[in-house]
Amino acid sequence: MDGLVCSKTPDRIETRVGFMGVESRKMQRIRMIIEYDGSGYHGFQVQENAHTIQREIESKLLQLTGHPTRITAAGRTDAGVHARGQVIAFDTVATIPPFRFSAALNSRLPPDIRVLESSAAAGDFHPRFQASKKTYSYLIYRSQPGRVFFRNYAFCNTELLDVKAMQEGARLLVGRQNFKAFCASGSGVKNFERQVTKCLWEEIGDILHFCIEADGFLYKMVRNIVGTLLEIGRGDYDPEYIQKIIAGQDRNMAGVTAPPQGLYLMNVRYE
Amino acid sequence: MDGLVCSKTPDRIETRVGFMGVESRKMQRIRMIIEYDGSGYHGFQVQENAHTIQREIESKLLQLTGHPTRITAAGRTDAGVHARGQVIAFDTVATIPPFRFSAALNSRLPPDIRVLESSAAAGDFHPRFQASKKTYSYLIYRSQPGRVFFRNYAFCNTELLDVKAMQEGARLLVGRQNFKAFCASGSGVKNFERQVTKCLWEEIGDILHFCIEADGFLYKMVRNIVGTLLEIGRGDYDPEYIQKIIAGQDRNMAGVTAPPQGLYLMNVRYE
Repeated sequence: MDGLVCSKTPDRIETRVGFMGVESRKMQRIRMIIEYDGSGYHGFQVQENAHTIQREIESKLLQLTGHPTRITAAGRTDAGVHARGQVIAFDTVATIPPFRFSAALNSRLPPDIRVLESSAAAGDFHPRFQASKKTYSYLIYRSQPGRVFFRNYAFCNTELLDVKAMQEGARLLVGRQNFKAFCASGSGVKNFERQVTKCLWEEIGDILHFCIEADGFLYKMVRNIVGTLLEIGRGDYDPEYIQKIIAGQDRNMAGVTAPPQGLYLMNVRYE
Repeated sequence: MDGLVCSKTPDRIETRVGFMGVESRKMQRIRMIIEYDGSGYHGFQVQENAHTIQREIESKLLQLTGHPTRITAAGRTDAGVHARGQVIAFDTVATIPPFRFSAALNSRLPPDIRVLESSAAAGDFHPRFQASKKTYSYLIYRSQPGRVFFRNYAFCNTELLDVKAMQEGARLLVGRQNFKAFCASGSGVKNFERQVTKCLWEEIGDILHFCIEADGFLYKMVRNIVGTLLEIGRGDYDPEYIQKIIAGQDRNMAGVTAPPQGLYLMNVRYE
């Protein structure tokens, strides 16, 4: 096993590698950009007895490489949340050229998960810890709930909304601030400061598109921000109340969590 | 049974009505506008051992009204084809007010079929025979095949296309003409003349949207027209060749059938 040098390699890869008698094969770290329709999954992360994106990809990688491996992702999206530019990484001893992983894996994956690009990564590359910027989109479709073509891809909402006030509230979220009030419990993080570099609404026909870019996001932060801006849009409070919510650092001051199906992880950037 | 006057009533409704001892109940014809995501269905029409839109709706109507009924539709869409404004009709002896059928049925239907509106119809109303105009849309997404969010809702295509030539070809389809060359075999129709009142392409970002309106459509006519216009877009032949195809009345002269997932029945009008 001395020839295998790779940080954070799961034990079972090494065991299997040893068992297969291929200790001399080089471990390589692969990075992939993937997109997925989260409608049919219980989120990204592996959970017992649940159909998740991670489990689906890991099981197809096992078929492809002949050994188990663990993937890490830039963002662990919740059930029903989508990705158009999620970044993942994993280690393998398979001798497949890195750029060929996309086609090889796509031929095995179901049509609701696609690899857009695969490449070699540095041995210490971590898609989440090294991400410098992430962008999320949230779509609100201005139509009756339950419309067929948006049921899994947007939050259908016909309420009268003051988009100008929502825009003003969004503007107040930009900057390095403490977003504790927008963090769902159970995340385990200690530092709630994040740098939001973009936060705005666009109206495109019947679609209200929310776009937010930051150096990182807290658990359910985007959906909690959208829920809060919707309450401002309904006139429940003024846009300036955003500053009080941020100062209060109290989850109860912010709005309800917007439903998952409107949320898309759009892209992840690395310095 | 003398009290029941309703054209084209299936026998089994009458039998069941008789059996239930409700001969005195009035039969009413209900008209509905529905939308559906055709991805999970083997088309509209009931077939043995197949999950179809018609079967799904008829089984929920049986639960709701307590008696079997047969629905008729303005357009019998194929497997994978969608509808945003399909019109259907059926007869019932249930005393539910016509406008209430939409909510009552929606509470039972799966989320990929929605009733947008229900109302009382004349006893001789037939959604297909009496339609004066129908509009279909076809969406082409200018991206690699297999992209996750369009896989069921557009034809993904990255070929270099001369949209101006496709537009010119579309223009030549407008008018009262014989569309036999665009009709798939097995339809059983004798009259291939149809009046096309609108036929054009729009470019909306990465989407190529084809819109066609006519007093009626032949079997697979829209998909065969789209396939033919795509061949013109690739430069396989000039737009004027459309006139030769129409004159030739030969299916072999027209292009291949475009895939179903890009097609939407948008609306149906009645004089």
